[in-house]
Amino acid sequence: MDKKAEKRLVNIVGKEHALSDSAERLCYSYDGTFYRGTPDLVLFPQNAAEIAAIMKIANEEKIPVYPRGAGTGLSGGAIANDGGLVLVLTRMNRILEINDEDMLAVVEPGVVTDHLHRAVEAMGLFYPPDPASLKACTIGGNVAENAGGPRGFKYGVTADYILGLEFVSPEGKIIRTGGRTIKNVAGYHLIGLMAGSEGTLGIITEITLRLIKKPAALKTALLIYDDLDLAAKTVAATIREGIVPCTMELMDDLTIACVEKTKNLGLPQDAKAILLVECDGDESQVEVEMEKVVALARREGATAVETATDAKQRERLWLARRSSSAAIAHLNPTKFAEDITVPRSQIPAVLKALKAIAEEYDLKLPVFGHAGDGNLHPNIMADKENEEEMVRVKKGLDALFRVALDHQGTISGEHGIGISKKKYLTWQMGEEALAYMAQIKRGVDPNQILNPGKIF
Amino acid sequence: MDKKAEKRLVNIVGKEHALSDSAERLCYSYDGTFYRGTPDLVLFPQNAAEIAAIMKIANEEKIPVYPRGAGTGLSGGAIANDGGLVLVLTRMNRILEINDEDMLAVVEPGVVTDHLHRAVEAMGLFYPPDPASLKACTIGGNVAENAGGPRGFKYGVTADYILGLEFVSPEGKIIRTGGRTIKNVAGYHLIGLMAGSEGTLGIITEITLRLIKKPAALKTALLIYDDLDLAAKTVAATIREGIVPCTMELMDDLTIACVEKTKNLGLPQDAKAILLVECDGDESQVEVEMEKVVALARREGATAVETATDAKQRERLWLARRSSSAAIAHLNPTKFAEDITVPRSQIPAVLKALKAIAEEYDLKLPVFGHAGDGNLHPNIMADKENEEEMVRVKKGLDALFRVALDHQGTISGEHGIGISKKKYLTWQMGEEALAYMAQIKRGVDPNQILNPGKIF
Repeated sequence: MDKKAEKRLVNIVGKEHALSDSAERLCYSYDGTFYRGTPDLVLFPQNAAEIAAIMKIANEEKIPVYPRGAGTGLSGGAIANDGGLVLVLTRMNRILEINDEDMLAVVEPGVVTDHLHRAVEAMGLFYPPDPASLKACTIGGNVAENAGGPRGFKYGVTADYILGLEFVSPEGKIIRTGGRTIKNVAGYHLIGLMAGSEGTLGIITEITLRLIKKPAALKTALLIYDDLDLAAKTVAATIREGIVPCTMELMDDLTIACVEKTKNLGLPQDAKAILLVECDGDESQVEVEMEKVVALARREGATAVETATDAKQRERLWLARRSSSAAIAHLNPTKFAEDITVPRSQIPAVLKALKAIAEEYDLKLPVFGHAGDGNLHPNIMADKENEEEMVRVKKGLDALFRVALDHQGTISGEHGIGISKKKYLTWQMGEEALAYMAQIKRGVDPNQILNPGKIF
Repeated sequence: MDKKAEKRLVNIVGKEHALSDSAERLCYSYDGTFYRGTPDLVLFPQNAAEIAAIMKIANEEKIPVYPRGAGTGLSGGAIANDGGLVLVLTRMNRILEINDEDMLAVVEPGVVTDHLHRAVEAMGLFYPPDPASLKACTIGGNVAENAGGPRGFKYGVTADYILGLEFVSPEGKIIRTGGRTIKNVAGYHLIGLMAGSEGTLGIITEITLRLIKKPAALKTALLIYDDLDLAAKTVAATIREGIVPCTMELMDDLTIACVEKTKNLGLPQDAKAILLVECDGDESQVEVEMEKVVALARREGATAVETATDAKQRERLWLARRSSSAAIAHLNPTKFAEDITVPRSQIPAVLKALKAIAEEYDLKLPVFGHAGDGNLHPNIMADKENEEEMVRVKKGLDALFRVALDHQGTISGEHGIGISKKKYLTWQMGEEALAYMAQIKRGVDPNQILNPGKIF
């Protein structure tokens, strides 16, 4: 980076909010994947005006800019793959307003998702999106990736809760779109476009989020199966009956074995699948709904059912699901955490196909995920230093995404494209749809400086 | 239009599906507003391939193209304001699939909204969006305008139900985006952008819609007030209690008087406001919910309450609301049907401000609307031949939109910008946000041929 430009950039935020030392820059070279890319400079801006000033210089000097929250992303979206400037938004971490009459919150992008959860719940309100990384990840990143989570089955994903956005355009303009109303069709729905655009179309600086009333009651059930297919069929049957639990989480045999090995929860060693189902709402409604779920699960072949109402019991049941991601890391050090999503009728067939891939390429491939949404997390556990294995991993990944597409699905339901799924996006969208997206990108970022090398 | 180009265009669809006679073209010069614009040619394509071929020629020859469904739009979005070519999509009116396992429908853009409602409900499924024009309007238009309706309060708007889209780009490419899954973050969320883009970014040729299970029970209540403010406060209190009726429709005194004059429903002549509340869901849940609503309404000052469960009784209660739009036409021939939307806490203040505008400019200004959403329909009833009155109307409109913006609201919750609200969009968004939107438009439509003169 040109030294003069660097100085101008550092001056905007102040020296105390800039990192240029190589060891310090290295700390911002990673995300939740194993991709790495070290930026030339790391800045911690405090507000939209500073970011606008930074973007004007970056645009003039054609310096790549990579916006970044907590760096928990799972597709390489925050990686500085071409030097340049990382903008860390974690200083912008204020909850600016929680309004219980209009049921909305206004937050800066660096607010940790869990902090928002706790703040609104203390007021009897509820912000449903709950990505697995919620204790660390930030709302800005949630918007940029359109993050989901277990509660997505009943409550939808991040985009469903955004009423308004302020963002800085690649050319350094401060744009406000949407607002504080439930409905809004004034001009293009830029919120819809920005959500999931992975930091390539603008840097989000303020978010107005719709809240709902906190459900009065919550009930959880752990359903155990000795056949994965029966668990999948329970999910389909539940939906067909019109029952809408807030979560329906699935774990396969390999995941269960890993969890049991690390946590000793007393899960049956021969369990082939677990469904974790949670119902929320009014006290009486939750009671009735959970009774229906349990009856249905038994009918569909669940071998054991455990339910919980109080927080402590619930925590124990959730421990199995929550520790899945860490537990499977014991299989192998390098995790390819995927998030293919299919129509729910395809879940049984896709689960079978995933098992077949594991066998064909001799891969450790535990599967868990948000079965109610058709959103599965097949994880290929490998060792990236093992070249022979990595050849099989690549074949396995190709096969896995092919399975998703062959079953009317998508290559990503939650994690985005970033760097890791660029190849597969072409498989899914085709050249013409990608070209149309690129026309949008070029339209608003003619110098291609904002998070370049991602998606396309 | 160049005769050679015209001939090439007509050949694509066949002479029997083209209109060039001036009387015939006149039939496609209007929409639901009083704007007029006669195209040079009207074509009725049958599929995406024909539309792609048409767009390629139009793009080459720089011929403006105006896509059109049933022409029920309320902001002039389908008006051929600069000659050119109107593409009428009503021949593409097939319901291609209704899938009850994956709970989705695949339709062509020309399907009438009510036809889809009836088809899916016959299978026990439900497509909630219900714009007032549902007996005539088409799904393609609903997507292009992101149409709402009374049920939006509980169920959201059209955009909330779109899983996948096929559209033809301004340059004649056939683009598919989204698909059949509930979650999808593969590439930009073009669905979010296309919904509400008013036919300026692409011509929608196929829509995959998410369906839900049809609610088992439905209960309706008509709440009568002798004070508009108390009705508004009932809405706020209902929401605060966490009760979510599927609709909360408001009518003011002037609307009630017009309806009573034309329909003789036996509404109290001195009623200052009516709320029409509908609850749906499980039998028992609906019962409980409606009891809560009625108790709450009485507490907040409703003077009379009438409830209905069976279809005939419900129809009678709905008649008051459904006939509002036609009934107020008796006040004056020219209707300015607006759809400002504000956070719900602002409804009482906005209703007061609207009454003040009516007084200040001596205007007939009945108000009804979707109060639960904060989406009000103030209607200025005038005579466009009366020049003196039209001066007051224009001042009244300016004041009305200013009121929306001054109360944290938007100039449009349902109808879009089209031609009629272009001036006010600048008030709302500011030049920089509009410029960003224009960059997107220019990016995908470099020759600015698709529905030019709308929004911007």
